[in-house]
Amino acid sequence: MNLFIHNTRLPDATEPVQISIQHGRIAAIGADLTPLPDVEILDAGGMTAIPGLVNGHTHAAMTLFRGFGDDMPLMEWLQTRIWPAEARLSQEDVYWGARLACLEMIRSGTVRFEDMYWHFHGMAQAVEDSGLRAGVGAVMIDVAGGEQAASCRRLAEQTFEESQRYSERVRFTLTPHAIYTVSPESLRWTADFSARHDLPVHIHLSETRHEVEQCLQHHGVRPAVHLDRQGLLTPRVLLAHGVWLDEAELDLIAARGATLVTNPVSNLKLAVGGIFPFEKAAARGIPIGLGTDGTASNNNLDLFQEMKFLALIQKHAQNDPTALPAHTAWEVACGHQAPLLGQTGILAPGAAADLLLIHTAQVETTPEHDLISNLVYAATGHVVDTMIVAGKVLMHQRTIPDEEEIRHEARSRAARICQI
Amino acid sequence: MNLFIHNTRLPDATEPVQISIQHGRIAAIGADLTPLPDVEILDAGGMTAIPGLVNGHTHAAMTLFRGFGDDMPLMEWLQTRIWPAEARLSQEDVYWGARLACLEMIRSGTVRFEDMYWHFHGMAQAVEDSGLRAGVGAVMIDVAGGEQAASCRRLAEQTFEESQRYSERVRFTLTPHAIYTVSPESLRWTADFSARHDLPVHIHLSETRHEVEQCLQHHGVRPAVHLDRQGLLTPRVLLAHGVWLDEAELDLIAARGATLVTNPVSNLKLAVGGIFPFEKAAARGIPIGLGTDGTASNNNLDLFQEMKFLALIQKHAQNDPTALPAHTAWEVACGHQAPLLGQTGILAPGAAADLLLIHTAQVETTPEHDLISNLVYAATGHVVDTMIVAGKVLMHQRTIPDEEEIRHEARSRAARICQI
Repeated sequence: MNLFIHNTRLPDATEPVQISIQHGRIAAIGADLTPLPDVEILDAGGMTAIPGLVNGHTHAAMTLFRGFGDDMPLMEWLQTRIWPAEARLSQEDVYWGARLACLEMIRSGTVRFEDMYWHFHGMAQAVEDSGLRAGVGAVMIDVAGGEQAASCRRLAEQTFEESQRYSERVRFTLTPHAIYTVSPESLRWTADFSARHDLPVHIHLSETRHEVEQCLQHHGVRPAVHLDRQGLLTPRVLLAHGVWLDEAELDLIAARGATLVTNPVSNLKLAVGGIFPFEKAAARGIPIGLGTDGTASNNNLDLFQEMKFLALIQKHAQNDPTALPAHTAWEVACGHQAPLLGQTGILAPGAAADLLLIHTAQVETTPEHDLISNLVYAATGHVVDTMIVAGKVLMHQRTIPDEEEIRHEARSRAARICQI
Repeated sequence: MNLFIHNTRLPDATEPVQISIQHGRIAAIGADLTPLPDVEILDAGGMTAIPGLVNGHTHAAMTLFRGFGDDMPLMEWLQTRIWPAEARLSQEDVYWGARLACLEMIRSGTVRFEDMYWHFHGMAQAVEDSGLRAGVGAVMIDVAGGEQAASCRRLAEQTFEESQRYSERVRFTLTPHAIYTVSPESLRWTADFSARHDLPVHIHLSETRHEVEQCLQHHGVRPAVHLDRQGLLTPRVLLAHGVWLDEAELDLIAARGATLVTNPVSNLKLAVGGIFPFEKAAARGIPIGLGTDGTASNNNLDLFQEMKFLALIQKHAQNDPTALPAHTAWEVACGHQAPLLGQTGILAPGAAADLLLIHTAQVETTPEHDLISNLVYAATGHVVDTMIVAGKVLMHQRTIPDEEEIRHEARSRAARICQI
């Protein structure tokens, strides 16, 4: 089914336009377009078309653990809450937790996300059924190497094979957890497998000071250098967090072409101590994306809120109110500064039809002196009225057909899993 | 008209209750209440009753300037944007800007706020017509003393007289702007007038490091000491910001019984450099409230978002994920830690009927492991379905009768005023 968006506005224009969508792509944008016969017409009067947002780092199914132990010391939280609950998770639980996450992302304007979690097929099927796009990986943890490493590799190879069954909206991703939970042997295997099959890699890096200290102690070098020695700093690699990177590590990441994804809310909530060195990374031309992390450490998936935290914490850290202006925060949240995040969200003929229609005529976005400032500093994800991904309408007038069923199912599974 | 809330839940209970409201106050809460004849019945099935929130520091009418120059150096912003625009403001403009602010506060759960701005009557009438409660003051700026000071005092005295015409929802407040914009002579007069008529005082204090340096240079002491020497540290005084207070100043504020209001979003956005010393102030028993500041430096009035910033920036500053837990942030936002902010928002018989009904069955508040955690870390003001203030329903099912008219009027006035 093709789609014709009637009477919308673009961010930088006042005259209404029509957008013609064919076979999941934007066919044309113009003031004088007329719809072909047999096309679905969507009236967008009073609404503005903007790109969809991209969440560069999350653990979607952890919506099941939202509010299940906040404000706790990390190890107590993991040992008494998260690990026992995760041990009870089935593939089906992950499916429903991820469906809940996808609902929330649709409702707050995220068209694509990078995920890392257990139970690949539960996650991939949830992306498939929700209509979103995602990079999906089954997390690899292998501290010891040896037989555990071999088993991890077999699982990754098998999952890669099986992942072919999903549509192009699901991108198989290699997801070694972190340098302190994956053996050098498995990191090298990941680098090789990624190169051989041209696969993206998604890994946590330099989130805490403890990780840096431990890496120096065990390997004699800082985390980015350690990763590079395993061959795992390449243009295919996405590094989540990067809070404690020093200047030499940033130089190395820039030289290798890897992408950094910052998660300001999670970093503050878990009190990792540092602030992501945005200015230094941007000055080196490193591609930068924005992530929410999982809801257990956020506790929502709203990139509108995340953009505001991103801009404000950088102003604070740089002691400069002009640092990281709204327009930059917006570009980062759209994924425009990091091609590895999928190159979605471009409003131009030929691009994938992944876009939002927003009602700017809301109380918190009045007056309309500056649309982007309103979106970054004043709005939340509730500004989104309609989401279209790959040419398909996933939400219209804030209504998603199976929302109640998903919410109900996820809630009852969460209650069962999260018993203390 | 009396009101009977049918079938709601309280935060810490699972069984439904009824709430009977008479003459603007909560008459009874119980499982077996039956409505009197001639009472308006409000069905709250599926909803939870929670206290309304209190905004301890804002400049409501500045909604007109939302997004009108962000990310700019302070002086350039004031000189090229705000001051020229403020010079054009009429009493009527302030009325409509404040009505827009009140709309936004109703939609995000704020039942009471402390305001400081120009054109007292425009502001007070907006509070009156919106149905909210507020402390309202006409800002006093008098750098030179002498004739300017005398004129300021006459205006304050006259405004105080005229303020008697408003209902008890409008509380007249003395609002000297700051120690660097008001002469010692006028600060002393304010202290005296406040004592004589038992009036609250609302003043900015210690927002920037520059203010501290200037105070040391001109008066030889730090800001809180200077204020105390003018007799203006009392239990009737509300101090907004307090970012750069040192330990001795906190001791002094605690000894005098003054209230501090922190504004985390504004402090980050304007890059004032420091973080409000929450832990040190709380340890001394200083009453603490939460404010959004005006929308020109936020850019919204959503205390749900402000609570999250409050908790997260304190965890960061204290380098401790257990610092300022959700339940504390919630208490602060309800005004429960600062009686000077109006002692509203208490759900008990005899208290003013100022409360919210929220739909917890929303995507971003699922699952329901912990209601308060969900409200602080996951929700936004959009979780509010119904607001009741002084027993009157101001919003129900997120509908406010005159919303469109107010939004339209404020928008066209903002466009006229904000010409560069």
